[in-house]
Amino acid sequence: MSSENAPIVGLVMGSDSDWPVMEAAADALAEFDIPFEADVVSAHRMPTEMIRYGQTAHERGLRVIIAGAGGAAHLPGMLASVTPLPVIGVPVPLKTLDGMDSLLSIVQMPAGVPVATVSIAGARNAGLLAVRILASGTDELAISLRSELVDFAQDLNDVATKKGANLRHKVAEVFSQANVAARSGR
Amino acid sequence: MSSENAPIVGLVMGSDSDWPVMEAAADALAEFDIPFEADVVSAHRMPTEMIRYGQTAHERGLRVIIAGAGGAAHLPGMLASVTPLPVIGVPVPLKTLDGMDSLLSIVQMPAGVPVATVSIAGARNAGLLAVRILASGTDELAISLRSELVDFAQDLNDVATKKGANLRHKVAEVFSQANVAARSGR
Amino acid sequence: MSSENAPIVGLVMGSDSDWPVMEAAADALAEFDIPFEADVVSAHRMPTEMIRYGQTAHERGLRVIIAGAGGAAHLPGMLASVTPLPVIGVPVPLKTLDGMDSLLSIVQMPAGVPVATVSIAGARNAGLLAVRILASGTDELAISLRSELVDFAQDLNDVATKKGANLRHKVAEVFSQANVAARSGR
Amino acid sequence: MSSENAPIVGLVMGSDSDWPVMEAAADALAEFDIPFEADVVSAHRMPTEMIRYGQTAHERGLRVIIAGAGGAAHLPGMLASVTPLPVIGVPVPLKTLDGMDSLLSIVQMPAGVPVATVSIAGARNAGLLAVRILASGTDELAISLRSELVDFAQDLNDVATKKGANLRHKVAEVFSQANVAARSGR
Amino acid sequence: MSSENAPIVGLVMGSDSDWPVMEAAADALAEFDIPFEADVVSAHRMPTEMIRYGQTAHERGLRVIIAGAGGAAHLPGMLASVTPLPVIGVPVPLKTLDGMDSLLSIVQMPAGVPVATVSIAGARNAGLLAVRILASGTDELAISLRSELVDFAQDLNDVATKKGANLRHKVAEVFSQANVAARSGR
Amino acid sequence: MSSENAPIVGLVMGSDSDWPVMEAAADALAEFDIPFEADVVSAHRMPTEMIRYGQTAHERGLRVIIAGAGGAAHLPGMLASVTPLPVIGVPVPLKTLDGMDSLLSIVQMPAGVPVATVSIAGARNAGLLAVRILASGTDELAISLRSELVDFAQDLNDVATKKGANLRHKVAEVFSQANVAARSGR
Amino acid sequence: MSSENAPIVGLVMGSDSDWPVMEAAADALAEFDIPFEADVVSAHRMPTEMIRYGQTAHERGLRVIIAGAGGAAHLPGMLASVTPLPVIGVPVPLKTLDGMDSLLSIVQMPAGVPVATVSIAGARNAGLLAVRILASGTDELAISLRSELVDFAQDLNDVATKKGANLRHKVAEVFSQANVAARSGR
Amino acid sequence: MSSENAPIVGLVMGSDSDWPVMEAAADALAEFDIPFEADVVSAHRMPTEMIRYGQTAHERGLRVIIAGAGGAAHLPGMLASVTPLPVIGVPVPLKTLDGMDSLLSIVQMPAGVPVATVSIAGARNAGLLAVRILASGTDELAISLRSELVDFAQDLNDVATKKGANLRHKVAEVFSQANVAARSGR
Repeated sequence: MSSENAPIVGLVMGSDSDWPVMEAAADALAEFDIPFEADVVSAHRMPTEMIRYGQTAHERGLRVIIAGAGGAAHLPGMLASVTPLPVIGVPVPLKTLDGMDSLLSIVQMPAGVPVATVSIAGARNAGLLAVRILASGTDELAISLRSELVDFAQDLNDVATKKGANLRHKVAEVFSQANVAARSGR
Repeated sequence: MSSENAPIVGLVMGSDSDWPVMEAAADALAEFDIPFEADVVSAHRMPTEMIRYGQTAHERGLRVIIAGAGGAAHLPGMLASVTPLPVIGVPVPLKTLDGMDSLLSIVQMPAGVPVATVSIAGARNAGLLAVRILASGTDELAISLRSELVDFAQDLNDVATKKGANLRHKVAEVFSQANVAARSGR
Repeated sequence: MSSENAPIVGLVMGSDSDWPVMEAAADALAEFDIPFEADVVSAHRMPTEMIRYGQTAHERGLRVIIAGAGGAAHLPGMLASVTPLPVIGVPVPLKTLDGMDSLLSIVQMPAGVPVATVSIAGARNAGLLAVRILASGTDELAISLRSELVDFAQDLNDVATKKGANLRHKVAEVFSQANVAARSGR
Repeated sequence: MSSENAPIVGLVMGSDSDWPVMEAAADALAEFDIPFEADVVSAHRMPTEMIRYGQTAHERGLRVIIAGAGGAAHLPGMLASVTPLPVIGVPVPLKTLDGMDSLLSIVQMPAGVPVATVSIAGARNAGLLAVRILASGTDELAISLRSELVDFAQDLNDVATKKGANLRHKVAEVFSQANVAARSGR
Repeated sequence: MSSENAPIVGLVMGSDSDWPVMEAAADALAEFDIPFEADVVSAHRMPTEMIRYGQTAHERGLRVIIAGAGGAAHLPGMLASVTPLPVIGVPVPLKTLDGMDSLLSIVQMPAGVPVATVSIAGARNAGLLAVRILASGTDELAISLRSELVDFAQDLNDVATKKGANLRHKVAEVFSQANVAARSGR
Repeated sequence: MSSENAPIVGLVMGSDSDWPVMEAAADALAEFDIPFEADVVSAHRMPTEMIRYGQTAHERGLRVIIAGAGGAAHLPGMLASVTPLPVIGVPVPLKTLDGMDSLLSIVQMPAGVPVATVSIAGARNAGLLAVRILASGTDELAISLRSELVDFAQDLNDVATKKGANLRHKVAEVFSQANVAARSGR
Repeated sequence: MSSENAPIVGLVMGSDSDWPVMEAAADALAEFDIPFEADVVSAHRMPTEMIRYGQTAHERGLRVIIAGAGGAAHLPGMLASVTPLPVIGVPVPLKTLDGMDSLLSIVQMPAGVPVATVSIAGARNAGLLAVRILASGTDELAISLRSELVDFAQDLNDVATKKGANLRHKVAEVFSQANVAARSGR
Repeated sequence: MSSENAPIVGLVMGSDSDWPVMEAAADALAEFDIPFEADVVSAHRMPTEMIRYGQTAHERGLRVIIAGAGGAAHLPGMLASVTPLPVIGVPVPLKTLDGMDSLLSIVQMPAGVPVATVSIAGARNAGLLAVRILASGTDELAISLRSELVDFAQDLNDVATKKGANLRHKVAEVFSQANVAARSGR
């Protein structure tokens, strides 16, 4: 839990083996001090509990659900079918197919039941999307988060700018003696 | 219903728009006089009823479930998670992706919860697989069906053999004057 | 515009040729009385205006952006890079590749800049996801929308249930004379 | 062999190099005390023996066949063409293509000859599907297996529930000092 | 049959529905006066006959087999497993997947049993490949065919050259008034 | 030819059947008054002439080559291997695979021999890329073209802006009575 | 060279980096004592020499060409366009895409110029296909090779049969104490 | 920088993590003594700076831009939308999907805004394509570069020819005792 406050984001996954991927969502939420809960909620191994989790989520104070799953990844879509909350789906890649099965199983939902899908293994973005959703509100938290998101974008910009400076420096060094570089490696 | 007897196969789909594809499963069951029921059971629009359908299926006398769905096709896998019955999944192709999303969403189930997947739009084979499953039992129905399946295979053989004869005839006619066939169409 | 109130959702697309797909998002927003604006904002043909659109969106009162694009679909991701608002991306399928290029161009965003991606041509779900996001807030609109979403889910359930009844009826009729059905069509 | 009784499941594969994948099917069968036989039956290197294996399978008492193969994976489909038994196909992934070739070669069977396909490398599920098929019968074994399958599902549920508790514990520990977590790793 | 002589090429397919695609192979053989036979030989509906067809092919005087099949396309590979003759496989596209399943099912044969695969629906090239194979021999037919193949290549060249001339003519006409061409269509 | 001047762009394709796709490249060149030649140059049917075309292209005054081809699309890469000129490749989609085969055959060139690949069926962009290349020079034509390209971009912007205005108008009309829009179409 | 006799098979590849894959073709030819030559013939780096290699191949006594290439793999198709000999193409997988680009670049040849494509990295089968082609002739070599191919198939059968025996033995050992095997690993 | 002269090629990438792939472009430019600059210009983290980079590129003397990016790779296309210069896009492969997402995001640009796409991770070819573009001009640099490109092609040819000689030597050694080579490895 990122604070003593009641969690407002539910971070669930089909198995604890998804945690190494999904941890980045928790990190992102923690960076913005969003209180969240994390749990294993398997669509296939705990179907009844999964339905109940979704049905009661908004009553328990959750405002966004992040769900990660791999292969025939049914968890995000099934949760979306039993909650009015926005559900963010994270396609977890398994040993084969590079997560393409997970992506299609999550994103290709039928009309009526949307899942907000992020990139394959994109759990950090799932966390950040949850922050953006909370920041789109009209309450104080939203106003505060929106401001933090602007800072966050500036931080990204600063880091990238610094990387650019470093690269320019490195390239200048490496290629300053270009005249002596033979046409090797063809 | 294919007979007055209580249904032993449940044929369900996510929407009535799947019926044109799924009808072939009903036809196959009817050809073998298997009593079945057909229904719309949507994982995403009727999640609670879907769970209940799966949980009570074997108590109501069903012995096999056939489930068709398209896109993020969660119905077969979700039913399999709440029933001990064998569940046959039919990937229904939607407007885009040619059913590849449906196939992967159905077949890539995690260890513990199998779905017997047939080809894209392969509802007829779903029906025939249900017949084979019923025929693998030890009761009278099974013995009878096994014998019918042997006849069925012979019928397939006969039809293919006749098609071969027709093709040989047609080819003989078309190509008997091959000597005058110019090298056109290159 | 769905009401006289200032728009809170921006619905943009790379070209007016995307409208036949994107219209379903407008319909969904209108069903929930969400005031929205619709516009052509092309990442490639109006890059400066596109950046400005994103940068000013939240200042103009928008709370969610829905962006549809096809092929090398850069609009949703570029908007997400200049706004703190949640951006929903709709992959529009073009003449070839069935929207797979659009999907990957939208969903595979780098860490730091999320896009909430829905299914290929899934504009209706984009609209519904915007509603869910607005309903995840703490204000009166949110409370009202959450209630409406529960009703909406019930409507989906009712329609599916009726379709099931119709299907059961149709199947009962068609297959009542199963005994006389020859094993045709093999 | 999982017991002294005559085998009722045939577990075959195109090469002994498939064994590391297919072993999980044997494990699953053994867990349910299903007597089975295992063998190398190559469609391409032993075509005549393969045909004979299929043709005599049900006469020898087999009730289900599990067949694993990779690449141009013809074994499951060819066996299905010569037996009335249900055939379960396991797509074995080879060095390239991640098993997509194996999957399509197995699942895309023509109307008339179904193969019950499980996930890529999903041999454990193949074994469990065989158990479900045996459990769908009307004899004592079926009744016993159905009850065991219900227990099995409960076991899966228990394990997942425990994993959830562990995850909740771990997350609570890691994120309890969230306030001091810098915005690193962006 | 393209002549009164005994057939030296066997042209087979899984179903007569493949004929519209496979006919182009017959045309190509007829253009080179190669005696051939055509037949329906289904791996899945006539497995025993299929095996026999392959086993006896070279004894009956066939020197090359062309086999077309779609979906889980097992015919070319199974024939290759029971004959020492070169087998040419033609992937026939079905309603979905554009023949990608057919291609992979045919081309991805295991070491030991090769199939000479041509393009999706590339039956004309299958016929021409059979001619090249017959032309690679040392007998009179081979010498004659090799000479004909050289002429054939020249014909292809001539036709393409003429098409080039026509295109140059057409383009010159259309674009001669380029100065008046407005920048329309952007 | 777009003018009386000697052609500086060579626009070639494997067959005149590619013209309906490739014509858009000619249109683009004509809009910028670039003198060009168009021809059928088949890598597979005119290999010697194709090599000669590439080898002599720059001696004949060509400065850019645009080459369109489909399937196993070898023309752009083969031309690139015999000319120092920049070669632009256009993947032409054939009946199956939506041009994915054409794209990969063109773009995946080995190190040493680049092909500038544009989108599937993207012949108009091939023409525009040729213009950009010519505009990257230092001569008068380049200076003039660069200026025209800036105007061209402004035109694209103007057209998109107008489309936006039209869309805003249309949407305002359609959705002005949103209050009466029933929740139909769910 | 596999013998002192003049080579009758040409084994070429685009780069010596393809040799680890292509070596298996040489091994297969050597097993059947087929005299062959091996060389680097790059379509993109030695286009003129490549054309000449193809044009003179049959004059130099070659009867079959095996060509391996990766990525935009043009070598097999370009050779096929300048020789009447049968050309066998081996798709060599590169660092990305698992050889799918190589496969499509080789197999999707236009009508008129066939390439006999084998599986991704299937060089051994390319060698065996060359043997089958040589064995399809009418000369003494052909008769001898055909007989050897029958033995070869029997060898494959024997090896597979032995593997089956070993597997049966191993499985019997491992699973003899199945009764004590806990339901672990779920 | 490859010389003291002002850079005429801009080599940019979305992150410094792309440098290991993109470095090969710098090497190629340096081999031809092309003055270039290298920088991190992220479409998503520095959108405003990215737009400015593109808008001012030709004013600062750049004549070609090379841009590498991965995943939802928007950098090349966005730069192309704000510059009249030719933009070369390099698809950088990320952890999953082997660069297919990067390729489609870069190559599938809409009509009006072309990107010259090279192969996945094909940065060396991006550099060489920039050289070809510079060599297509009419100034002294172009004339000099064109001559160097002819030498470069000859070098490629020489290296490949030498590799061929080495391979012939190695194969002759390995296979000289072919008679004693057992039929192992089947």
